[in-house]
This record gives sequence, C-alpha cells and structure tokens, in this order.
Amino acid sequence: MASGNEEEQKGITVKKGENFSEWYTQLVVKAELADYGPVQGTMAIMPYGYAIWEKLQGVFDKMIKETGHSNAYFPLLIPESFFSRESEHIKGFAPELFWVTKSGNRELGERLAVRPTSETMIYNFMSKWIRSWRDLPLLLNQWCNVMRGEIKATKFFVRTSEFLWQEGHTAHATKEEAEREVMLALGFYTDIFEKYLAIPVIRGMKSDSEKFAGAVYTTTVEAIMPDGKALQSATSHYLGESFSKHFGVSFLDKEGKNQNVHTTSWGFSTRIIGALIMLDSDDKGLILPPLIAPIQAVIVPIFYSDEDREAVWKAADDLKHKLEKKGLSVKFDDRAERSPGYKFNYWELRGVPLRIEIGPRDLKEGSYVFARRDTGEKLKVKSEDAVITTSKLMKDIQKNILKMNRQAMKDRIFIANSYEKFKIDIGTGFVKANWCGSAECEAKIKDETTATNRVIPFGEKKKGKCIYCGKETDLIAYFAKSY
Amino acid sequence: MASGNEEEQKGITVKKGENFSEWYTQLVVKAELADYGPVQGTMAIMPYGYAIWEKLQGVFDKMIKETGHSNAYFPLLIPESFFSRESEHIKGFAPELFWVTKSGNRELGERLAVRPTSETMIYNFMSKWIRSWRDLPLLLNQWCNVMRGEIKATKFFVRTSEFLWQEGHTAHATKEEAEREVMLALGFYTDIFEKYLAIPVIRGMKSDSEKFAGAVYTTTVEAIMPDGKALQSATSHYLGESFSKHFGVSFLDKEGKNQNVHTTSWGFSTRIIGALIMLDSDDKGLILPPLIAPIQAVIVPIFYSDEDREAVWKAADDLKHKLEKKGLSVKFDDRAERSPGYKFNYWELRGVPLRIEIGPRDLKEGSYVFARRDTGEKLKVKSEDAVITTSKLMKDIQKNILKMNRQAMKDRIFIANSYEKFKIDIGTGFVKANWCGSAECEAKIKDETTATNRVIPFGEKKKGKCIYCGKETDLIAYFAKSY
Repeated sequence: MASGNEEEQKGITVKKGENFSEWYTQLVVKAELADYGPVQGTMAIMPYGYAIWEKLQGVFDKMIKETGHSNAYFPLLIPESFFSRESEHIKGFAPELFWVTKSGNRELGERLAVRPTSETMIYNFMSKWIRSWRDLPLLLNQWCNVMRGEIKATKFFVRTSEFLWQEGHTAHATKEEAEREVMLALGFYTDIFEKYLAIPVIRGMKSDSEKFAGAVYTTTVEAIMPDGKALQSATSHYLGESFSKHFGVSFLDKEGKNQNVHTTSWGFSTRIIGALIMLDSDDKGLILPPLIAPIQAVIVPIFYSDEDREAVWKAADDLKHKLEKKGLSVKFDDRAERSPGYKFNYWELRGVPLRIEIGPRDLKEGSYVFARRDTGEKLKVKSEDAVITTSKLMKDIQKNILKMNRQAMKDRIFIANSYEKFKIDIGTGFVKANWCGSAECEAKIKDETTATNRVIPFGEKKKGKCIYCGKETDLIAYFAKSY
Repeated sequence: MASGNEEEQKGITVKKGENFSEWYTQLVVKAELADYGPVQGTMAIMPYGYAIWEKLQGVFDKMIKETGHSNAYFPLLIPESFFSRESEHIKGFAPELFWVTKSGNRELGERLAVRPTSETMIYNFMSKWIRSWRDLPLLLNQWCNVMRGEIKATKFFVRTSEFLWQEGHTAHATKEEAEREVMLALGFYTDIFEKYLAIPVIRGMKSDSEKFAGAVYTTTVEAIMPDGKALQSATSHYLGESFSKHFGVSFLDKEGKNQNVHTTSWGFSTRIIGALIMLDSDDKGLILPPLIAPIQAVIVPIFYSDEDREAVWKAADDLKHKLEKKGLSVKFDDRAERSPGYKFNYWELRGVPLRIEIGPRDLKEGSYVFARRDTGEKLKVKSEDAVITTSKLMKDIQKNILKMNRQAMKDRIFIANSYEKFKIDIGTGFVKANWCGSAECEAKIKDETTATNRVIPFGEKKKGKCIYCGKETDLIAYFAKSY
C-alpha cells in the first residue's frame, strides 16, 4: 500500500533516542499502522495495525470466554438523561461528549451522546434482564468503538477522539464476588501486557482523584514509556452499588429479599498499540513479540538467475507449508519487483520476529540464514532443523523482548526521598515516593510538576514521609507525567 | 438471564402461521436474542443473538482472508462535505443521516454524519494510499456499526437505526478485475446463505431504481420470508469510476499513465439474523443449522435420586468431552433448579440442533436418547456410537433444513402472466414476471401494489410481454413486497 515511491519506504530517518515523538509518528506512518483522518483527532487503523489489534482481540476473547463471559452489543447513542443519573459520571464525561442532535432534517427531542463508555446504557438493559439470583452473575463484554473529544494534539493510537476497545460489564450478588471479578479482569490485562506484549507493568490502585468517574475504586496496570511518560493502558473498576441504585438493577435473593447488584467494569483499547509501538521497537522500527505478531516469520528469496529461481521458490514454499503446519504464521515475500535489501528493511520496519533467507548458495549447503529481529543476530540453520529452530526462536524472542523491557523499566523507576529529587527525576520515568494519601498533596504536585499519581502499587508499603507535606505515612505511589 | 419468572419461559404463545409478526417478536425476546433500546429504532443484541453473529463473522472473515482481503478500521464520523462529492450518493442517504453537531459545549465547524456506509470516508484514504499499479488491488474490509434513520416501526434485526455489518471496499486497475471481485463477494454471500444458513436465495441484479446510491450496478442475493415478503440480505456493487473520480483515487499504470481505479463495495449485516429467525424456525422457536449454531448439541441429565446423579453426571461430562474433541460445540445443562421439561423447552426455543438425554435407565441400557430439533424425531443411540452419530446428524440436519427451505421457497414463487394474477399473488411471495426494463413500469407497479423489483435473476431470460405495459421483452424480474 502507498509503496509506489521507493524513497518513502527507506525507513525512519530519526533515532528513537533523539527525537522520540517524530520517530513514533514516522514508524506508524511508514510501517502502515495508521493514518490521520479528515477530522481533527481521528485516524484510520490500516490493515497491518488492525491485524495486531485482531491478535489482541483473539487472545483476550479466549480469556473472557473461558471464564464464562459473553459478548453482546449495545446502542451507540446514549440519551442525555442517562448520563445525568449518576452525578460523578456525568461530571467526568460531559466535556468530552459528541452530541447527535439531528436525524435527517428532524431535530431530536432529546440529544444523544456518542458513547464514551457504556455503563449507563448497559445498566438500562441489566435492570430489565436481571430479576433473581438465578440471573447472576451476569458477565458481559462488548467490542466496539467509543468517542471522547480530545483537545490536545492527536497522537496515533494514544490520543484520538475515537478508539476501539472492549468494555466488560458484570453484575454480581455480593461485593466479594464483584471484587474477585475486578481482580480477574486485572489479571487478564496483566497477562496481555506481560505474557503477550512482553511489557512489564505496575499493578495497583488509582487514587480517588484519578479513578473512573462513578467508581468506588479503580485498579490499573501502568507501563512507562521510553520518554519517561506513563501510559494508562487498562483499568478494572469496582462500581459497588453506585450505578445499580441509580438504574434500578436489583434482584430477589434466595430469601426473596430485593437487593442491588454489585457491578464492575473494565476495559483496554487500541491505545495499547501505542504502548506496543513505543516499547517493542528500536531505531529501525517495530520488534513484535511472536505471540502477537500477525506475521511471525517472513521468508525472503534471494536469487541471481532464472534457473536459481525455481529451486529457491520450491524450497520457500515447502518451508512455509511446514511452518504453517506447526501453527506458525508465515509470509513468503515473493514480490518480483523488489530487491532482497528492500524486503529486509520492509519487514524489519514492521517488526516481523524472524527473517528466513533462502538463496541458491544456502540450498547447495542444505541450510538457510535466519535473522532475529530482536537481536539482529544471524544464524546458519540446517534445513532439516528449520522448523524446530523456528519454534524455539519464537519462545526465545518472546522472552528476550520481555527481559529487555524489564531492564528498561527498572532504569526508568526513580526513588525520591525529597521533593527536590522528585522534581529532578519526574519527566524521565516513574518516581516512586511516599505519599500521605491526601488529594491536596496530589493536586499540588500536579500543579507544580504536571505529574499525576499513576498507581498505588499492590502489596508495597514502606514507612516514610509524604514527598509533598512531610507527614508520616506508609503509603507509596508511583508518579509520572503521562499521555 | 431474565429467567426468574417461570411463566415467561414457557415458549411462544402464538403460531408462526397465524400471527407471524407477533410470533417473530416473541421468539426474539423469549430466546433472548435481542431487546429494545431506550431510543426509538435501537436495540441491544443479547449474548445468544450475538453468538450467532460471531459464528457468521468467523465464517465470513475466513472467506475474505483466504482470498487476500484485510480488515481495517475507519472513522465513524464523516464530514458533510464528503457526502456532497458524489451527488447520487448524498441524494440516497441524506434523509437517513444522524448528525453530530457538538463536541462538549463547542459547536462544530462542519457537522459530521454518523456513517451510514463508508465509501466516502474510505475513498478519502484510498486517494492517499494508492499511487501506483503496485498498490493494486487494494482489498479492504471493515466490521463496524452503521446508522440509518428508520421512520417505520422498529423490527428486531430487520429494521433498526443502528446495525452491525461488514463492508468490503476494493480498488482495482481494471473494470474486468473489479467486476470479478463483485462476483467473488456475491459468491461469499451465496455460501453464507445456502451453505451455512441453509437458506436458498435468488442471485441477480438490482434494477437501476433499486441499486445502491452511486453504483454503476448492484448485484444481490434475495430470500423470501414465510409471510411472502422479500428480505434484502446482502449486496455487492460495482461502482466503476464514479467514486474514484470524485475522490481522486488514481494510480500510475505500468506505462506511467495516470488512471482512475475501479471500485467495488459489498456488505451484509445483522439483518441476516432476521432472515435466519424467520426461515430456520417453527412454532416452538429457532431451528439452527449446525454450521452456525453457537451450541450444536445440548446434554440434558435426567435423574430421580441422588445416587443416580453421580453416574449421570459422569456420563454427561464424558460424552461432552468426547464431542468437543471432535470439534463440536456442546453444552451440558446441569442447572439444578430446572426440570428436564423446562430445559427441553428452553433449548428448543433456542434452536439447538440436537438434544441428548442421559438418564439412569439409559445408562443401564448403555444408550442415550437423541432428539433432533429439525424433525422432532427421537432415536435411541448406543453410547459407543454417540460421537459418530452426532457428527452424522449434524450433516443430516444441516442438509434437511436447506431442503425444507428450498421446498418452502418453491411454494412462495408465483409466475404471473397477467397483471391481474400479479396483483393477486403479490404479497404472498415472489412474483416472477416479464418486465420491459423501464423505470416507469417499475414505478407504476410500486405505486399500485407497494411491491418492488427485487432482483433480475442471472441467466434467466424468457420471451414474453411486460407485466405492466405489455411490451415484448425477454427480461425477467422477481417482484415482492419487502421489509
């Protein structure tokens, strides 16, 4: 696509470490992941970017179905009156809503918001679908588009008005069960990040100022980007009875008593692809973890004469077939109009984990050349070992990317014992500090540094003094500037 | 879900042949396929209905990927100016558009339409993505929601303002190639209907009055419903250069000459589930063809004492496991609070192709009772033959549903040799008649009977007189009232 011009394909012209923002944009455009839309804040997800999303969808959909969740679909347009029922919720979302006011030439009686999230709409249905304890738990999920007006500059995947996501919405008979569900979903997200995207995260709670509008509490997985900014990537909320009361979602328990359900909601979005691009990459482009790479290995034929061609093609086809039988996703790049060098750059930019070169010399020696995308390492592999080596490399590459990202995260976590130190390190990574727990200190820090409280980590406590007010506390939080 | 009240679950209270419309609504609600939304014309697709959609998505997605198409995602909101570029297109869609005019408190500079279809948006991107012959063909597909204002009464799946669909959009270097693509997509739809949904269709062309707004021509697959109305279910359009000219989608050919691309678009929507409900069903509820049934077999345990329970449970678990190993989707309905009779009705309503009853008496005899949903037939099956019999029955049931629907369609096609006969039969099915091809006769017929020209069948010609004006012609068309 748009590959008519050789010049354009020549790769990213700036270094990741030197001009991160420009590098990011070039990567997205040149690897054909996304393109700017005609309206400010919008983008199209191009086939290769969408294929990554499809991989993530596949993995996540399996997780939720194996644990008893079902997909469903709810209306896009939400009546204004629905938002007003939960006062925190409307406060949180009002400035970001897109309003439909007309249908054809007819002015609508009540204006309708394009969904920014579907709690209110789904509770409207839950109030009809849930009658007794037999209907619980109700474990729903929706894959859909949502819109939230963005006033800041558009950034592919990370900051766009419209994005794609999944939103889980569940109703339970008890608080305990709902809270277990919140943690179950957070576990899915942890796996998505660490096991599939090879990106380590900090798991914990959002502060009251940062939680979801209307939630009792919000749990989160937070990752830190190479430019030192945090990217909120997936959240799981315990909503208690705050929505079920307002929407009348109640049930008759086994004793025949009417009770409000306890609800949860949780979501991750195409934003996650932003984190993937920033972290699973280098100067040359993407480095996709094999478990979410749409193409896991690419075979590039190398030949110098027409008579070589046939043998090379046959070997390539043969290997592709064998690898596919093992469940691997393989591309044979047989474009006649492109040189091997062009193809090397093309697939490196797109982050394909493994390149397999097949040429007449290799065939004579009964071997192929394997090139790892993560390390750049080249290996000569005997043709009879090609399949087993590929399988092994997939595991190695997956592990190695996580290892590299773990090290990088370590390097981006700073411990601050003084506000002076805090102010120096903030902007280069997570700053871990004691915090008294007050919204006032949090707000002051935000005002003075633009950094927010990203996450209060699970299971980490340490006696010390609040980084802002100096009060004794054992609470710890990770602060960072963020996208 | 919503199953607290036993009464409600008792099945459909009217007969399909007596009050078709009420029967349809009851089926949808009682089988928990969908529910009305809070805004007129909207609905939620409930988990079981959505599971059917997911099966169809899975089948279709495989078809398009195997033939080189890729999924992508494009913005929901389309600037008004885009629509105006293709005059026929805006004329066709203007009355149905939902308009976003505000974001937060800010009035938008240009109002934005919620997409009714994405030709204009996608051509905006294609104009950037296509430069040379190397970029062609560009074969895209999008799974998404679309909105078209509906003024007629809401009907689940069939007539709602918002629906889900796939829209294929392809660009080609030549007319011939684009026309082959149109037929390829129509082939996919034919398979979806006949091979998967077990619903026979008439394949052919739409008349100029009925074609897609902006198309050179539209091909269609049309099915006829039990109430004699046609349901347009999937269409595939050849758009020629009409859009590419207006959106500047051109390419440099191998000779370096600039040329407009030839485009196609094609789609099917959740409307198809309406056809499924109407045709794959009887008085008791759905009769799902095994190839698209979310649950292909349900095991219902029957026991009278606690000591029976263990043996029955073990046998059921065991059989479920064996069937799943064969790739079948099986549900073991182990709800303690429900009687076998309740469960029989519950799964019959939901159309599960095969019910397997396991009770202590059966176990003693080393057999199970199989009940086919399509014929109601009960069979005693030896336990060692259970797996092979199930596999065989899946094929038999699939075939039998298609056979029944073929016979039903035959009975709903009438041949009219006079306008008098035409007027008598119209409203009870397809009326097949000679037609001179003029838009005038078509319009008159519509005015006088409310029936439209549904499809000009491929490969069927017959000398005769136009049913309206009497002019000699060899053109044939199928007319019907429609949803």
